[in-house]
Amino acid sequence: MARIAYVNGRYRPLCDRAGGGPIAIEDRGYQFADGVYEVVKVVRGRPCDLDRHLARLARSLAALDMPQPMAPGALRAVLREVWRRNRLSTGVLYLQVTRGVAPRRHLCAADIRPSLVVTARAPAFPGEAEVTGGVGVITLPDQRWGRCDIKAIGLLPNVLARRQAAERGCREAWLVDPDGMVTEGTSSNAYIVDRSGRLITHPLGARVLAGITRSLILELAARADIEVVERPFSPDEARAASEAALSSTTSWLLPVVAIDQQPIGDGRPGPVVRRLMALYGDHVGSLAAAVRPQDVWVSRQING
Amino acid sequence: MARIAYVNGRYRPLCDRAGGGPIAIEDRGYQFADGVYEVVKVVRGRPCDLDRHLARLARSLAALDMPQPMAPGALRAVLREVWRRNRLSTGVLYLQVTRGVAPRRHLCAADIRPSLVVTARAPAFPGEAEVTGGVGVITLPDQRWGRCDIKAIGLLPNVLARRQAAERGCREAWLVDPDGMVTEGTSSNAYIVDRSGRLITHPLGARVLAGITRSLILELAARADIEVVERPFSPDEARAASEAALSSTTSWLLPVVAIDQQPIGDGRPGPVVRRLMALYGDHVGSLAAAVRPQDVWVSRQING
Repeated sequence: MARIAYVNGRYRPLCDRAGGGPIAIEDRGYQFADGVYEVVKVVRGRPCDLDRHLARLARSLAALDMPQPMAPGALRAVLREVWRRNRLSTGVLYLQVTRGVAPRRHLCAADIRPSLVVTARAPAFPGEAEVTGGVGVITLPDQRWGRCDIKAIGLLPNVLARRQAAERGCREAWLVDPDGMVTEGTSSNAYIVDRSGRLITHPLGARVLAGITRSLILELAARADIEVVERPFSPDEARAASEAALSSTTSWLLPVVAIDQQPIGDGRPGPVVRRLMALYGDHVGSLAAAVRPQDVWVSRQING
Repeated sequence: MARIAYVNGRYRPLCDRAGGGPIAIEDRGYQFADGVYEVVKVVRGRPCDLDRHLARLARSLAALDMPQPMAPGALRAVLREVWRRNRLSTGVLYLQVTRGVAPRRHLCAADIRPSLVVTARAPAFPGEAEVTGGVGVITLPDQRWGRCDIKAIGLLPNVLARRQAAERGCREAWLVDPDGMVTEGTSSNAYIVDRSGRLITHPLGARVLAGITRSLILELAARADIEVVERPFSPDEARAASEAALSSTTSWLLPVVAIDQQPIGDGRPGPVVRRLMALYGDHVGSLAAAVRPQDVWVSRQING
């Protein structure tokens, strides 16, 4: 079945027969990476934590001095409609807002109309082996720009680091800032658990993205009496930790069991991370009760 | 007249009637800023320093482990044909190569086909007032990524800094790295001239782009017995300098006469910069003799 995208007011095939598409050459997303995005998980027709994603989108847009592409209610309706037209039950929604189309110059008029694109795809969640056995990470210098708190589409440094991780058989690269501290992964937040069972992760600020899954993990930990410490940690500290993990919308919470080919703890997922994985799974599972009726997008099982 | 672009094998209008275009949503340029670009000046039908631009393009592609989109000779033919179809004499060619189209994930297959887009536009060179009176710059923290030597399309930090410069009535923002040194502008290299008449500019490396105009200015200076020193300088040193300048393909060499609203030297273009401007103008003017016959793209005056 052809995938359907929303593009600036129209629902249309994701790509045309020749592999081309509907995006203008002078869309500032294409020529300047002048835009932001969100990835929303949808489980059995229910978008997970959509309010948080839309709040973060608003913050990203404000940071770039870009207007909302449409009113929040209309945006929710578009997301729902894209989901419905793609006949998916569980998977991922992707939405991207760019500053709009303008002649290619760094400066553009203030009143151009933002571009909005929404796509949907089947899930690419971690497999059973990664969930139960954990994953490895490598460490690399953090070469990203100074505003990683903005969820901007300029992800080339992330792409390059992820390629290096894959070449060494690892799922993710943990990025190390000039102070020698792990900020986060290329598309996930990073955690360690110390010998006292405390969950440690980099504090919010310009160097990390305020992950939606991160915010949930920290809340679930606090509610489960797992002490949370938001402070930077070094690769050495990670190597000496009892446990480690990464989280993102599409990775959920995953155990990290090796860093730079060295095992963390006993090299297997530990009790604190496993407990948080279960709590996060419960959170996602409980969405049926938590979401507003209009956010139940698919009432029957379509594909998983 | 509709502008004509080259897009992956076809010549077509720059945008369609609805303001859309031919770029795929899942082009990695649009979703990851996973691509590079060049801007080539064309003066009276003659591309300026095209060999240098194509050599830099090859370096940028190699840094991202991306293949050339086509053989150099074919690429030259496409550039020439885009120029010819747009019926321009003097202006700017823009070419962008992205990794290609693939499902949106940080990792993609190694063998996807790069996308190549080429556009042309009328000149937007500095006006008489800027050339004769000079321009002002502001200083801002350099928030760009760690590989500014790669001419990548992820220009959001540059865009944001340029907006701040414009809000303060300045043409450019000079970016200051964590060591307190000026690296370069958002789309130009930065120079000062000290009391001894030496031309000082940041050395090449990961923090600056190896500007084509920069390379020419340094060669022209050396040939004119103007001593060139490639070392970082601070905003304080710039404030105390005799002269200052910026250069880029589209700005040519421009005098900088104020930094953060404070005049540099006597607040007017000085003799060293004016001499280099003349030499660079001569260089561009002499292209008729220097370029290869096949790079004379327009033999008659069309528009300026």
